[in-house]
Amino acid sequence: MKLWDKGISIDKKIENFTVGNDRELDMHLAKYDIQASKAHAKMLGRVGILSEEEVDALVAELENLKVQLQNGQFQIEKDFEDVHSKIEFELTKKLGDTGKKIHTARSRNDQVLVAQQLYFKENLQDISGKTKDLIDVLLGLAEEHKNKLLPGYTHLQVAMPSSFGLWFSAYAELLIDDLYLLEAGLKIVDQNPLGSAAGYGSSFPIDREFTTEELGFSTQKFNVVAAQMSRGKCERTVTSNIASLANTLSRFAMDICLYMSQNFDFITFPDELTTGSSIMPHKKNPDVFELVRGKCNKLQAIANEMILITNNLPSGYHRDFQLIKENSIYAVENMKEILDIFTHSIAQVKVKDIDLQDEKYKYLFTVDSINELVINGKSFRDAYQIIGTQVQEGSYEASEGMKHSHTGSKDNLSLNMIRAKLQKL
Amino acid sequence: MKLWDKGISIDKKIENFTVGNDRELDMHLAKYDIQASKAHAKMLGRVGILSEEEVDALVAELENLKVQLQNGQFQIEKDFEDVHSKIEFELTKKLGDTGKKIHTARSRNDQVLVAQQLYFKENLQDISGKTKDLIDVLLGLAEEHKNKLLPGYTHLQVAMPSSFGLWFSAYAELLIDDLYLLEAGLKIVDQNPLGSAAGYGSSFPIDREFTTEELGFSTQKFNVVAAQMSRGKCERTVTSNIASLANTLSRFAMDICLYMSQNFDFITFPDELTTGSSIMPHKKNPDVFELVRGKCNKLQAIANEMILITNNLPSGYHRDFQLIKENSIYAVENMKEILDIFTHSIAQVKVKDIDLQDEKYKYLFTVDSINELVINGKSFRDAYQIIGTQVQEGSYEASEGMKHSHTGSKDNLSLNMIRAKLQKL
Amino acid sequence: MKLWDKGISIDKKIENFTVGNDRELDMHLAKYDIQASKAHAKMLGRVGILSEEEVDALVAELENLKVQLQNGQFQIEKDFEDVHSKIEFELTKKLGDTGKKIHTARSRNDQVLVAQQLYFKENLQDISGKTKDLIDVLLGLAEEHKNKLLPGYTHLQVAMPSSFGLWFSAYAELLIDDLYLLEAGLKIVDQNPLGSAAGYGSSFPIDREFTTEELGFSTQKFNVVAAQMSRGKCERTVTSNIASLANTLSRFAMDICLYMSQNFDFITFPDELTTGSSIMPHKKNPDVFELVRGKCNKLQAIANEMILITNNLPSGYHRDFQLIKENSIYAVENMKEILDIFTHSIAQVKVKDIDLQDEKYKYLFTVDSINELVINGKSFRDAYQIIGTQVQEGSYEASEGMKHSHTGSKDNLSLNMIRAKLQKL
Amino acid sequence: MKLWDKGISIDKKIENFTVGNDRELDMHLAKYDIQASKAHAKMLGRVGILSEEEVDALVAELENLKVQLQNGQFQIEKDFEDVHSKIEFELTKKLGDTGKKIHTARSRNDQVLVAQQLYFKENLQDISGKTKDLIDVLLGLAEEHKNKLLPGYTHLQVAMPSSFGLWFSAYAELLIDDLYLLEAGLKIVDQNPLGSAAGYGSSFPIDREFTTEELGFSTQKFNVVAAQMSRGKCERTVTSNIASLANTLSRFAMDICLYMSQNFDFITFPDELTTGSSIMPHKKNPDVFELVRGKCNKLQAIANEMILITNNLPSGYHRDFQLIKENSIYAVENMKEILDIFTHSIAQVKVKDIDLQDEKYKYLFTVDSINELVINGKSFRDAYQIIGTQVQEGSYEASEGMKHSHTGSKDNLSLNMIRAKLQKL
Repeated sequence: MKLWDKGISIDKKIENFTVGNDRELDMHLAKYDIQASKAHAKMLGRVGILSEEEVDALVAELENLKVQLQNGQFQIEKDFEDVHSKIEFELTKKLGDTGKKIHTARSRNDQVLVAQQLYFKENLQDISGKTKDLIDVLLGLAEEHKNKLLPGYTHLQVAMPSSFGLWFSAYAELLIDDLYLLEAGLKIVDQNPLGSAAGYGSSFPIDREFTTEELGFSTQKFNVVAAQMSRGKCERTVTSNIASLANTLSRFAMDICLYMSQNFDFITFPDELTTGSSIMPHKKNPDVFELVRGKCNKLQAIANEMILITNNLPSGYHRDFQLIKENSIYAVENMKEILDIFTHSIAQVKVKDIDLQDEKYKYLFTVDSINELVINGKSFRDAYQIIGTQVQEGSYEASEGMKHSHTGSKDNLSLNMIRAKLQKL
Repeated sequence: MKLWDKGISIDKKIENFTVGNDRELDMHLAKYDIQASKAHAKMLGRVGILSEEEVDALVAELENLKVQLQNGQFQIEKDFEDVHSKIEFELTKKLGDTGKKIHTARSRNDQVLVAQQLYFKENLQDISGKTKDLIDVLLGLAEEHKNKLLPGYTHLQVAMPSSFGLWFSAYAELLIDDLYLLEAGLKIVDQNPLGSAAGYGSSFPIDREFTTEELGFSTQKFNVVAAQMSRGKCERTVTSNIASLANTLSRFAMDICLYMSQNFDFITFPDELTTGSSIMPHKKNPDVFELVRGKCNKLQAIANEMILITNNLPSGYHRDFQLIKENSIYAVENMKEILDIFTHSIAQVKVKDIDLQDEKYKYLFTVDSINELVINGKSFRDAYQIIGTQVQEGSYEASEGMKHSHTGSKDNLSLNMIRAKLQKL
Repeated sequence: MKLWDKGISIDKKIENFTVGNDRELDMHLAKYDIQASKAHAKMLGRVGILSEEEVDALVAELENLKVQLQNGQFQIEKDFEDVHSKIEFELTKKLGDTGKKIHTARSRNDQVLVAQQLYFKENLQDISGKTKDLIDVLLGLAEEHKNKLLPGYTHLQVAMPSSFGLWFSAYAELLIDDLYLLEAGLKIVDQNPLGSAAGYGSSFPIDREFTTEELGFSTQKFNVVAAQMSRGKCERTVTSNIASLANTLSRFAMDICLYMSQNFDFITFPDELTTGSSIMPHKKNPDVFELVRGKCNKLQAIANEMILITNNLPSGYHRDFQLIKENSIYAVENMKEILDIFTHSIAQVKVKDIDLQDEKYKYLFTVDSINELVINGKSFRDAYQIIGTQVQEGSYEASEGMKHSHTGSKDNLSLNMIRAKLQKL
Repeated sequence: MKLWDKGISIDKKIENFTVGNDRELDMHLAKYDIQASKAHAKMLGRVGILSEEEVDALVAELENLKVQLQNGQFQIEKDFEDVHSKIEFELTKKLGDTGKKIHTARSRNDQVLVAQQLYFKENLQDISGKTKDLIDVLLGLAEEHKNKLLPGYTHLQVAMPSSFGLWFSAYAELLIDDLYLLEAGLKIVDQNPLGSAAGYGSSFPIDREFTTEELGFSTQKFNVVAAQMSRGKCERTVTSNIASLANTLSRFAMDICLYMSQNFDFITFPDELTTGSSIMPHKKNPDVFELVRGKCNKLQAIANEMILITNNLPSGYHRDFQLIKENSIYAVENMKEILDIFTHSIAQVKVKDIDLQDEKYKYLFTVDSINELVINGKSFRDAYQIIGTQVQEGSYEASEGMKHSHTGSKDNLSLNMIRAKLQKL
């Protein structure tokens, strides 16, 4: 059943090709289509296009569908090309002529748009919440391990002393930046597009202010052409903001995989979190974090894919936009799963004791050695030359290192300042 | 002259390869390095590492360099690998031992970071300003042409009536979304990284709160490892936010190029804005908007390029990050130029009169025809079938179209609502 | 059941996260894993690791599994993490100790590799074949419509006369370039990786020349580390070559969508190939070609996604590589479907008669007018100025156009030369 | 001076925006434009459009320009928008009316195309040559260090024994795959586009077979529309093939940077190849290989950028294509430089002795231990369980490792087979 059935039979091959996996994907949107359809019906009542009885009947039936959905009884059968056809069909089957009126003054375009935006809005809030949970866990780990030193690297070369406290809380603070972007994304999806119909509005005297309030949107995308063009912009923004978060997690996962290598041996995880090899019985592989890394990298590719699909298309809807619905839902659902797994796993990390007196870490404290000379009166650049010469001649003797007292340094993590930043959000 | 000269001669081939075009790029950062060096010197005085006289001498000499820069006399000669070496060299040449002290308690890493972030901050504000100027021009054009109809398309097929008013103001409203992202980007770059040194802080008792205030940053990136890792994150965020703006402009440019085609013939521009062909003397090509489109598409590719460069690198600085400095400066400078050209050009657009009675626009008003039936009592779905049959049988007669009264529709552009959204920013 | 079971229970959450959709994907590889396992068993017999009876038993049981697969009876149940575990399990269940010997001298790494490469090899040949079919259809259409003129555009502006013959055969000739790349891809996947085990070979005296011949590979990837690293390279190459083909088809689809617009009206398709709108009963939308375009654009994004996933990973297998298996299978399966749909649809194209005397095509023949002046003795540049002045002053009168006689021009399509190129492949 | 000057003054702002950096870029194409212009002039003589004297004069003058170019005296002054305008101007200045005839029967479109393709052809051959040089160096290093063991990793975890011989020659064999792709790219650019004019051919009876032979092309892009559309396809193909090579080098560089870390300490380089830090005097950073990695990653991004620019543009030239000229020249020139630096640097690598008896490499030989059990009669899967239990219980004792005799294994590198593959090319 199609919303645009005109009595011409469509080539079966073509139909399969065009419908694709819309039915599966639309299960993520069903809840929001029901919600928006209710608001639309009420609005049609309000402006006199539907009678009070019609509105009540539609709302009741939509409530029924919602219950079915919650119970796992709602299905989009093969006869329907999407959730929207399915719902209109059910309403018409149950309510006859009243069902045939639900599509008055809207189009599938704004119907999809509004459902997507409601879905994004709820999920961006969910993702932000999960990110805050992870930040909490990381700040806890930083506090717990604040006195454990870790070699700091630049260029993968041993550089200067760092600590587990710095390492865990660095990612916590970086995740706050990602929350700023998610916040901006939320602003962009939180604008009611309903009423834009096929992108050029409607000759009915619809009340868009009513649906805006009913659906809990902060404002409208006023211009109907802009509303239609938010198809694409919303998906790209949401995905691109999720990608920023993914980037942070991917780098964190890379650190974890490297630090688990026998050549670093800085951290480990319980056996239950590792996997084995089909031929090497000794392997405890960090597959979880490799998959976090890989999946996060995949998420970073999606915004580019979306641009490749929609770029250089003139304004107005094109079917190509159907393909980016899949991408954005994929990004949202995966990020939620990744955050769950990451928080669950990192909480079980075991931090090892690292012997910084080992020969390979000999030069970890050269900057502290320079600083001692500076405190004793040398200019920085001269002190640099003196220690440099010692290193080259082999006469350098490792310093024991000094306390670092300034804000955000290894001996003054300033976790409360990071927490304050988070609370400001 | 290198900041890390240890008396070993470096392979010339290698030197050229590693320095690349840093000298050119660094001219964009010189102003900000001078600004940050002054703040750093004052802070060193405040915490007792430099004497008052030393601070005064350094500040005075940095002021001199600033004047040279403003006068176009500041150059980074071939002897220097970057602006930072150059400035330290000048200070040492003029001030001797005092110059050798400027690098105390900082590293080139946080020096580059802070200069970049000051550059981004100023330029994101500039880009936001230019975007607002463009929005103003577009809202003016929308007002001016609000009564001129335009066919609306979906799937590039004639669909429903639109207007020039809708078209111009749609892009205005979409650009506001881009401003939300630029605002988030601004928050991310507006965090002082100075004091993080090579990414692991310093054993000196530096006062990061002082430099934060002195440089006008809203807050610090507290954790020094996080501060170092904001290298990469800032560039990606800035570029990715600029890319969102570029996406909007690129689609707009595509519309313009299409609408200038003889087959649409909706708009034109003065001859001075078009270019010709080497063999076809009749051509007036829209090269400006093709290049806006192409350059905007290029800008959309840069964030991906940056991720490709930095992805899967463990934490800690790597030289690879040098390469994304170029990219982000390119994105910033190009976007400013594109916005200037776009605003300059679109202001000169000539809107044509379109004959909607032409045979090819015959079905532009079928939805209005359906709506008339609905108003007269048919259900929407039945009315759809009736008009559909008329179209198929060839008996459909074009309606004259109805007024669209709802918010954001062709006859009620709600420009004041869009303006209010903009003012809220 | 896992090939690396060591008696430790793995976190269920983690297990679901790591297995992902491998079972589904592996159904594409089952046929090739069976084929490679047979060759591996025979080789083990040949070098004396298995007895003749053991080889016969394994081969017979693998044949059984192949039959089950052909009959649709082969399934990878939830107990198995992939097809490889499943097959080893079946062999062990049926053959006891003999089954436990099949994994001797190989690892899951080279087992996946060899199955993937056999899959790619067969499918690249299939894709090449389908591309040739499309080329045939296009050359046929070019021949059929060789005398029908079409306006040629540059910058979307009316430029010079073209023809349907040129248009159809242009894409035919471009597709030959894509075949060159597919050919190179074939060379790259046609190198036996079996025997590389986990990427570092084996202490067993295996006979890699035997499996190379048995599996029909042209050569080996000799170096075992290189063989392991062909994981990633093969997927990227195959996908990137498919992307080149996708690029050609995407641009073709864009032309088709544009030419179907009422403002061009150059071609149309039977109603069965178009789709409708939920509110506009007159719409015949080119969804098929929009989806071809969109899906081809998606295919062009995949190589980039793969690089994002694998970039900057040091050599040696990482679990991240699992994620690009999905991508490459997606690319292969989609391209086959797209080619089928494209060939099926384009064969039904209806070419319209275009009135080149219409006012909007007035300047289509200015270059011919210049050429007439040149033939009569003017230099090209002077003739260009003369016609240019006529156009500007409004005195230009449209020429009727001249015959184009040279190779590959509208009146001399040289289709036989294109066919000869194709046959050379 | 513009080839399309029609006496209208063009907005200066617009002119700067549109010309961009074409003059600089075109210096790479000047040599090929001169070569193609000579062939074109001769052809015009051959078909009677130019007299013998005119041809001789044009050829002589083009030879002059070639000499100027070789002497570094050829410049594209600010008055010219590109090299093509400059050359036509010079011919007209020197030869008067004869100069004004050079543009007969061609357009700037096919003029750019043919110059680009000649440039690509020569440079792809050059890049292939340089790649072969690198392969030679790597095979030499493999031979030299064939007996030096290296731990092999999977998942960054210690896995099985490898060797420097395997490591060096693995990259050699992988580079051969990249040569297959470069070869396909060469086929695609080696097709004469000259004569396609603005993409729709010419009414002059030009002889494209003559220019094909004169310019040394293997064949023509016959169809003129296809020839025009090879703009874009050639750039993308060349860049994408270079990207495959870049991918191999980038991964190699990552290995090198990791292996230089104190935590691996497998290789080192002379001090002249490393760089230092502005504050840490002990640093010897692998900047060269980090920049190789970063630049190679950048090269991998360019094909995607090109698709983003040109995607969804209908057929026929658009100015956007100008922007990908820059990209493809950048890719070519950078890859040549990277290959030079890589070969120059890797030849100086110092391989260290690695103590495989170190505790962290304890399980490197577990597979060999299993294989011993198998040789003594256990099935593989049972032997795997036995050694697995030993590892878990802590009773496992490291084996000394066995010889690996099969093709391509650590003790049988089969370098001659790799050399044979290379020679077949």
